[in-house]
Amino acid sequence: MDLPTQTFALVQKHDGYSGKAEGPHIESLELYLDAAAIPLQALSDGQVLIKMAMASINPSDLHYIKGEYGHPRVKGAAAGFEGVGEVIAGNGDYAQSLVGKRVAFTVDPAGSGSWAEYAITSATVCIPVREDMRNEDAAAHVVNPLTAMAMFDIVRKAETSSFIMTAANSQLCKLLTALGRDHDIAPIAIVRKDEQIAHLKELGARHVLNSSAPDFADTLKAIIKQEKPRVMLDAVGNQISADVFAAMPNRARWVVYGKLDPTPPQFKEMGQFVFMEKHIEGFWLTRWFMSTPLEEQIRVIGEVQARFVTGQWETEVTATIRLSDAMSDLANALRSPDGKVMLVP
Amino acid sequence: MDLPTQTFALVQKHDGYSGKAEGPHIESLELYLDAAAIPLQALSDGQVLIKMAMASINPSDLHYIKGEYGHPRVKGAAAGFEGVGEVIAGNGDYAQSLVGKRVAFTVDPAGSGSWAEYAITSATVCIPVREDMRNEDAAAHVVNPLTAMAMFDIVRKAETSSFIMTAANSQLCKLLTALGRDHDIAPIAIVRKDEQIAHLKELGARHVLNSSAPDFADTLKAIIKQEKPRVMLDAVGNQISADVFAAMPNRARWVVYGKLDPTPPQFKEMGQFVFMEKHIEGFWLTRWFMSTPLEEQIRVIGEVQARFVTGQWETEVTATIRLSDAMSDLANALRSPDGKVMLVP
Repeated sequence: MDLPTQTFALVQKHDGYSGKAEGPHIESLELYLDAAAIPLQALSDGQVLIKMAMASINPSDLHYIKGEYGHPRVKGAAAGFEGVGEVIAGNGDYAQSLVGKRVAFTVDPAGSGSWAEYAITSATVCIPVREDMRNEDAAAHVVNPLTAMAMFDIVRKAETSSFIMTAANSQLCKLLTALGRDHDIAPIAIVRKDEQIAHLKELGARHVLNSSAPDFADTLKAIIKQEKPRVMLDAVGNQISADVFAAMPNRARWVVYGKLDPTPPQFKEMGQFVFMEKHIEGFWLTRWFMSTPLEEQIRVIGEVQARFVTGQWETEVTATIRLSDAMSDLANALRSPDGKVMLVP
Repeated sequence: MDLPTQTFALVQKHDGYSGKAEGPHIESLELYLDAAAIPLQALSDGQVLIKMAMASINPSDLHYIKGEYGHPRVKGAAAGFEGVGEVIAGNGDYAQSLVGKRVAFTVDPAGSGSWAEYAITSATVCIPVREDMRNEDAAAHVVNPLTAMAMFDIVRKAETSSFIMTAANSQLCKLLTALGRDHDIAPIAIVRKDEQIAHLKELGARHVLNSSAPDFADTLKAIIKQEKPRVMLDAVGNQISADVFAAMPNRARWVVYGKLDPTPPQFKEMGQFVFMEKHIEGFWLTRWFMSTPLEEQIRVIGEVQARFVTGQWETEVTATIRLSDAMSDLANALRSPDGKVMLVP
């Protein structure tokens, strides 16, 4: 079979960092990407070429194409960190052993992005996918589910009977909510719209609060008094997050994993670090991969697939958009806060 | 010998917390204390009565009498957390075994404060003092030296070759500076006045920066690039602290142990928690006592006494004030930033 030497893709228009911190909101895709055919590099040792079936879109992708992520953009390279597809070529024994398999994967900086017809990544980050797993779940196998599993592990080790999530209407928080439900650690979800409350309760949240409600501060205070949550998993990093943290009890941990709101928060209660043993830390999945033994990663991946196949988890999709329609349709599709947007070739 | 049934003391005028966070600056002592004779309670089991030789004044005392500390004020009770004196009575075998000994001590909430002729505390927190140790060093044996030892332990475990201190002209930071010098971990001191620079360099600081100098940000950046400090020991908790933390490298730890500046800092770089593995925590000596095995406490106390007696450490005293002069003279004496103020009966 002749291998493709180029791919249609959503291609980055900028190099490096923007120096801004606007958050992942996208006004127009044209500011950051072009739809174009780009050449595919020859596979290095250990790399695989993947014919894409479906790519997911995560907040980290949007932070990245805007130049606000942990590593710099590369002009002319395809965007997209995650997806599922069939391995059609490999360089090296292990890479070749994957040919013909459906794999979920993330793209490392040496590869070529998933928002494309063809992607390139390391064989070692490819996860063979069970036949009974939907493409919708497989395309979003890595970033959200492993982040959910790893952060829920922080919650479990904190010996708390409840935990708080901000921006809780995200797919990630829906996974976390189900984990809380299944392990009897009460999820306390903070959202920004009343219409998001019912579904999160259905998924297992014990409390769902609307941070724009006039009685938010009082309700939060009462719930914190009742549930004593010691962990906040926070994707927002704004003043509301800081105020929630200040209302939490002794030994509370603020785990930052995103910065949806670019406004810098003010810390009014520095003394709580001293007298209440509180602390602030971050979570980044990249570091989890670097610091977690492979065996443990494989165990967690198996659990992720089982949760999707048995219906304990479900990736909720609000739109599936063809690559060729992305420039016109994607930014608008991303405005719906209720589920993920998928890209297909 | 007849035991005293009352003591002259500096007595608190208020109960509980003030609800403010002004910091330890004292405009007038009258706002918080009276000089008066108060009755001495009968000794409970395990308590000792101490005839004071000298009491120290720490920022934590000032936070406390202002109602801004980790536990509430008690109206009518003597102030003062720390001092040295002779045990003249004890209730219980161990307490009685200390009678006649010179001890350094802190006062627990069940006792009676050290800014007095007589103080009461638990025998278990009394530290018999070597004969060759000066009262000036013994009166300040516990709070600063043990905080210095415990926080320097955090620095050592962080595997860093340098560390940053704010409000570095304090007695505590002078102790930390000497520890850095003796263990070859470079102290980087931040002060607010040029005239404080020379003495800190003399004590062993590798760099001393004046945060009010116009080139502070640039100098700091250059020094951080050169020394890569991973720990900041911070008594201030203001915007300068937050900006220093933001300039620090990967895996930097901000250890808050005081809040000298009541202004709340803004966090402009929340993404650093995620991508740079930074975190914020606090240090409180009370917790160190609760979480450190007694054997280790005794080892550290022995090292503290040895450091003072051999001259590796010295408590620098700027004023020694009689209790009966405190109401008129103390607030003014505390304005000198260059050393400690001691109280004597």
